[in-house]
Amino acid sequence: QNKLFFISNVRCSINKYCEEHEKKIIHSIKVGTALVLVSLIYLLDPIFKHVGESAMWAVMTVVLIYDFFAGATLSKGVLRVIGTTLGGGLGCLVAILAEDFGHIGYIAVVGTSVFVSGAVATYCRMIPSIKRKCDYGIMIFVLTFDLVAVCGLRADTILELARQRLTAIGMGVAVCLITNLLIFPMWASDELHNLTSSRFKKLACCIEECMEAYFSVGEKKGQPSINISGCKSVLNSKSNDDSLANFARWEPWHGKFGFSYPWEKYLQIGELLRELASIILPLQACIASLSQPSTTLQQPIKETCKNVGLSLGLTMRELGESILKMRRGQEKVLIIPELQSIKLQLTILSTSELQAIENFEDLARANVLFLLMEIVDKVKVLA
Amino acid sequence: QNKLFFISNVRCSINKYCEEHEKKIIHSIKVGTALVLVSLIYLLDPIFKHVGESAMWAVMTVVLIYDFFAGATLSKGVLRVIGTTLGGGLGCLVAILAEDFGHIGYIAVVGTSVFVSGAVATYCRMIPSIKRKCDYGIMIFVLTFDLVAVCGLRADTILELARQRLTAIGMGVAVCLITNLLIFPMWASDELHNLTSSRFKKLACCIEECMEAYFSVGEKKGQPSINISGCKSVLNSKSNDDSLANFARWEPWHGKFGFSYPWEKYLQIGELLRELASIILPLQACIASLSQPSTTLQQPIKETCKNVGLSLGLTMRELGESILKMRRGQEKVLIIPELQSIKLQLTILSTSELQAIENFEDLARANVLFLLMEIVDKVKVLA
Repeated sequence: QNKLFFISNVRCSINKYCEEHEKKIIHSIKVGTALVLVSLIYLLDPIFKHVGESAMWAVMTVVLIYDFFAGATLSKGVLRVIGTTLGGGLGCLVAILAEDFGHIGYIAVVGTSVFVSGAVATYCRMIPSIKRKCDYGIMIFVLTFDLVAVCGLRADTILELARQRLTAIGMGVAVCLITNLLIFPMWASDELHNLTSSRFKKLACCIEECMEAYFSVGEKKGQPSINISGCKSVLNSKSNDDSLANFARWEPWHGKFGFSYPWEKYLQIGELLRELASIILPLQACIASLSQPSTTLQQPIKETCKNVGLSLGLTMRELGESILKMRRGQEKVLIIPELQSIKLQLTILSTSELQAIENFEDLARANVLFLLMEIVDKVKVLA
Repeated sequence: QNKLFFISNVRCSINKYCEEHEKKIIHSIKVGTALVLVSLIYLLDPIFKHVGESAMWAVMTVVLIYDFFAGATLSKGVLRVIGTTLGGGLGCLVAILAEDFGHIGYIAVVGTSVFVSGAVATYCRMIPSIKRKCDYGIMIFVLTFDLVAVCGLRADTILELARQRLTAIGMGVAVCLITNLLIFPMWASDELHNLTSSRFKKLACCIEECMEAYFSVGEKKGQPSINISGCKSVLNSKSNDDSLANFARWEPWHGKFGFSYPWEKYLQIGELLRELASIILPLQACIASLSQPSTTLQQPIKETCKNVGLSLGLTMRELGESILKMRRGQEKVLIIPELQSIKLQLTILSTSELQAIENFEDLARANVLFLLMEIVDKVKVLA
């Protein structure tokens, strides 16, 4: 039975690997396609005539803004167009104004404006809230502004040049969005959704493993190996979550997600899961450090603990499932009384006369429960 | 006395804010200067003649690779030059080979090569170890390859064009490195070093606050407010640490850091600190959840716990200090016996007959001790 479990586990991870792999390959092919399409602007005469040498801006746009997730590509594309327009407009203005000052005057005016715009924009990019939202847009703004203002000296037809570049960048963005959104789009929102629900499962596994390991210590007389990588990956998930939620906000309505879907809720759930993981981690460390607890001490709490572990695991799985399927918390009605009864069991257990070590563990678990309840509350809020 | 402490605290944070602020302003001015310098390539005739229209590549280089930390700028600059050279070389090769096939043949060959290179490079960029090290370089490689290969059809003198671009990019990189490394450089290594040592202090504060809060519950009959933000910021530090260490590896010998300074040790210490934080966090949660423990139960453990809390805090501070000053672990000789005596005290305390709640806390603290010892071991390794 154990072997069967192992095989199904291996098969599951192979499947998962293939799936991941497949996604990456699809993405690679999409990038290749987009590059070929955008190169055609250069290679086919009719389009080339329209944009001239600026066609290379289209190629650059594709290379720079193409991203794995649809939301990331979309946000970069929009920021790129806005940044280019603003930067180009201001650059033209400065170049035209500076022309009245003669050659040296031109250099002075343009130099000053470049310095000021660069310094101010860089400072803005370091303000956290702006950095999160439009870092890329500001960079593009500076780039375009400088190029246009500086080129003004050489180019005779600066407006024509600006128009061509904007057209080229627009084409690049269009190619990106079409290939990215229409061919097997990868939604950051799906990823965030699935990750959040899979973390519930991971933590459920951790809790169950803990219980198993604790009670197998006495039986097998060997140090149990507890897999803490699941917990740790949950703990270190913050920055990944943040960026995914950031992209997800940009993604248009698709599948089961509406426009103003509450992505902050996912971040809050993620925060709670991290707190929960940070409680499970010391529980694991504590179990690992118990070298050989006497089995007689374990006996009285064994049944209750096993039950608690199992039902906690089940509850976590159910919660993960309900998030995955976005059920409107019908389980809530079942889960909350269950959690309350678990807590009651633990309280009874801990107030009865027991030795230190076991008690510690139970109380740690009671702690887990507190947090679990908070999570349940959050799930309620998620509706 | 409390007020005085508050004032000094506020002043300290204002100073810190100013310092941060100052760094940001210096960085902004540096970026502005670099942009002006690179614009001069365009504006001054003698240099412009040398590179022609490719001068805009220099501007682009500065905007794209300039980063807050010296190491980041350096690594991006080097990767940019390598990526451009390789991409340009291969692009030229493809363009020259494809010329033999006529117009349609040219389009076919170039299109295929663009597709293949784009897809393969994108796939490579998604392999984690490559992504960490040369994500940017591969992107630049694809960009240059495509531009050169595609332009080959139009430009008569493709080699001349490639030479000009490479020169321009070289100039851009040079301007970046000079302004970034010579004017008030911001070293990622310093930042990592200081952050690591300040985290010791943060955790020390957390431990001391915990003790304080626990024993003030009974006295003041009010819910103590425990500041958990310190702990949480340590917990969420992983991705920041990783990128800093990545940059620090690129930074040349400066100040007190040699060339092959063991940055991985910092990552290991960071990992241990995160584990420690994940143990302190539930300790805080547990203290916060104790509504009104009977003071009589607290009495017997009060002295020991206070002592333990104080000496743990001191130890952490000392460790942080010794990392900051890179002392070769002379403290090790003092700290380890001290930790052992702390542990002994706790063991005695926990084996004597005590009620559940206090025991839980002590054991949690014993747990903290285990980890602290591990940290001491690590500091030993750091030498």
